[in-house]
Amino acid sequence: MKTKKILLDESDIPKQWYNVVADMPNPPAPPLGPDGKPIGPDALTAIFPNALIEQEVSAERWIEIPEEVRRIYGMWRPSPLYRARGLEAALGTPARIYYKYEGVSPAGSHKPNTSVPQAYYNREEGIRRISTETGAGQWGCAMALAGQLFGIDVRVYMVKVSYQQKPFRRSMIETWGAEVLASPTDQTNSGRKILAEDPDCTGSLGLAISEAVEEAASRDDTNYALGSVLNHVLLHQTVIGLEAKAQFEKVGDYPDAIFAACGGGSNFGGVAFPFFADKAAGKEVRLVAVEPSSCPTLTRGHYAYDFGDTAGLTPLLQMYTLGHDFIPPGIHAGGLRYHGDSALVSQLVHEGLVEAVAVPQLGTFEAGVTFARSEGIIPAPESSHAIRATIDAALECKRTGEAKTLFFNLSGHGHFDMAAYDDYFAGKLHDYAYPQEEIDAALARLPKV
Amino acid sequence: MKTKKILLDESDIPKQWYNVVADMPNPPAPPLGPDGKPIGPDALTAIFPNALIEQEVSAERWIEIPEEVRRIYGMWRPSPLYRARGLEAALGTPARIYYKYEGVSPAGSHKPNTSVPQAYYNREEGIRRISTETGAGQWGCAMALAGQLFGIDVRVYMVKVSYQQKPFRRSMIETWGAEVLASPTDQTNSGRKILAEDPDCTGSLGLAISEAVEEAASRDDTNYALGSVLNHVLLHQTVIGLEAKAQFEKVGDYPDAIFAACGGGSNFGGVAFPFFADKAAGKEVRLVAVEPSSCPTLTRGHYAYDFGDTAGLTPLLQMYTLGHDFIPPGIHAGGLRYHGDSALVSQLVHEGLVEAVAVPQLGTFEAGVTFARSEGIIPAPESSHAIRATIDAALECKRTGEAKTLFFNLSGHGHFDMAAYDDYFAGKLHDYAYPQEEIDAALARLPKV
Repeated sequence: MKTKKILLDESDIPKQWYNVVADMPNPPAPPLGPDGKPIGPDALTAIFPNALIEQEVSAERWIEIPEEVRRIYGMWRPSPLYRARGLEAALGTPARIYYKYEGVSPAGSHKPNTSVPQAYYNREEGIRRISTETGAGQWGCAMALAGQLFGIDVRVYMVKVSYQQKPFRRSMIETWGAEVLASPTDQTNSGRKILAEDPDCTGSLGLAISEAVEEAASRDDTNYALGSVLNHVLLHQTVIGLEAKAQFEKVGDYPDAIFAACGGGSNFGGVAFPFFADKAAGKEVRLVAVEPSSCPTLTRGHYAYDFGDTAGLTPLLQMYTLGHDFIPPGIHAGGLRYHGDSALVSQLVHEGLVEAVAVPQLGTFEAGVTFARSEGIIPAPESSHAIRATIDAALECKRTGEAKTLFFNLSGHGHFDMAAYDDYFAGKLHDYAYPQEEIDAALARLPKV
Repeated sequence: MKTKKILLDESDIPKQWYNVVADMPNPPAPPLGPDGKPIGPDALTAIFPNALIEQEVSAERWIEIPEEVRRIYGMWRPSPLYRARGLEAALGTPARIYYKYEGVSPAGSHKPNTSVPQAYYNREEGIRRISTETGAGQWGCAMALAGQLFGIDVRVYMVKVSYQQKPFRRSMIETWGAEVLASPTDQTNSGRKILAEDPDCTGSLGLAISEAVEEAASRDDTNYALGSVLNHVLLHQTVIGLEAKAQFEKVGDYPDAIFAACGGGSNFGGVAFPFFADKAAGKEVRLVAVEPSSCPTLTRGHYAYDFGDTAGLTPLLQMYTLGHDFIPPGIHAGGLRYHGDSALVSQLVHEGLVEAVAVPQLGTFEAGVTFARSEGIIPAPESSHAIRATIDAALECKRTGEAKTLFFNLSGHGHFDMAAYDDYFAGKLHDYAYPQEEIDAALARLPKV
């Protein structure tokens, strides 16, 4: 029997996370305060536990994973690496295609890789309540699950359009015992301000972040948790790439190119950064961040200092951004709708060490269906962006006859996205390219620093 | 790190299925034709491939699993056995609780264990089209997936109430390229007859079976596939119990009691039969089939010959039944709504070798939520029946102080059942005990043989 799954033992769960900062050619650009001056770690203690702030600014290459976190990782980790023999056959490509499958977590995506340590460090420092936000719902589920496992109450500000369109993500969050509110709410200044301007506002991720941050900053008993973008979040996700490296070693192969969907960057950073270590040491490997053309942060945004949220409550981060008041078009199904991006991923893109491509919505769903029919697993639309880019590369191999090794991260399953598949089959989805003048206008509103 | 997951290698996927008939004290009661006389295998060739008919009547203990089937099993098998340390802690029980998790299959349940070999044998015998039915949608998904993998067109008659209430199961079936119709349809005599009597009929599993069987019997190019009840279906599912035995051996433990939800019997038979082999050899192990009190086939039905479908198109099987025109109350969320049961499971219950218990709906959901919050995985309502019975046994251990080993099969995840969880949280679900006079009336209509 030709092995399809490449598995590791529970004892092979990494003992340390990998911090890409140690191998970057230049140190990360510092976050700035409202006055345009670099802020220190102290500015973050109102909303984050000290351990996470230390990780956020650390330059150490390896950071220990607490034993209790590893034990909970063991619920679903190590996740399988698959050789996509069915997809290869369907495409008729000489390429060898592999994917790591993070949909095996109870929440169905890679997000618990960081919600679990975030809940752990908060509990260790005596925090019993966390506020957070969620867009498509994956992060809210992951944080609710982790909160339940560590006895922490969780409140989730869920972007209203998702709250309405994805009731089952909401039910899932509630099943794990967390509270869910449709954002914008009347519970925060940020929410009230927007509702006064537009009572029908269906929300955005940036706005939900404002609400959750505001709540955490104004309540002593409450911390904030973010599901992507920040350095410590990407750090936690490196378990994906670290395991994948061990799995490739086990079968004696190594990727020529790695593809991962990129919204805030945690999925991409999680799988790609451990391979960046090899790239920094001279190994040839392409690292490709794939984003939707309807929210083209890395490919059409500016590399500039901007706020992480709509209301401007967060520090300024140097990143690719479409402007913090950018609200992506409602037609785009699934996540990856954030106006900015991880500062680490942005810097590596800016320095030419990481590639970025944008793929259109219809081609993304077509790739997802091809994958479902050849490999069995129905992918999350987010993950299908990586599948699209991988299939394009595999078809290029077919043209050239090259047997390259292609690897992508299947960050989650699509069980809660079947309405989007329905819309796709019914011809209700469209490709959307954001008009350049609107992007220019949003970028003209970037804060001056 | 205390290991939570007990894993096997892909090479440990069983090479043979286990046939319980070889170890039963009495041979199975024969199926009867409309004339009340035993029918031979020939009567089934219009709708089943020969290989499956041979398995249906075989008394061989071990039946070879084709290599191609094992390779596809390798997409998700061997499935993990978990030690439920979180649940044990939540209950404060001295019992050791284990569960096998079948939700790791692409369809999210144990059903592909049989849809894959069924599609395989049909393709081997030149069949390119299969008709089938689905209740809650799990089987329809599994058959669609298998059809896609073997290049077989699949038409699914989906019980209308599920078709309406579970649109995402339908989308999933369509994503895997199969056709879905809401049953009763106007495409078959069985469907048209019911619609003439009751145009608003929301269907039943027995009726959907009639439609699918009628189509297969009337078309040369089409065979029929059933997701439970039949001997060959239970046979295929024994991969679950066979793997579990190897996993228990790996950790040096053995179950005192095994619990599995029982609708048509394939989930129960799949996990319990391989342990029945030990029981037949003198080992003490309780095998407990758990059914909903709203469809109490094993606990309140008669052990009698009855049809497998509503229209009376199938052979007569000796089984526990509530009468082939029994339609369970609409309040019952999830599957396990079949009027009859596997003849093999029924006979073993009748002979006192297998126990049966019925559990109420509210207690079932309460158990499912307890499990989700302590173990992370949100269970399918069907599977929660087994969780309820296991928790009851674990609490009994708490009272007596006994450290028994309890084992249940987590047959699927609940990602497509979140509406039922919503209803539970909103207080919309009720316990339901079918009135005895209605059961008596249905049983009085059993065919006379």
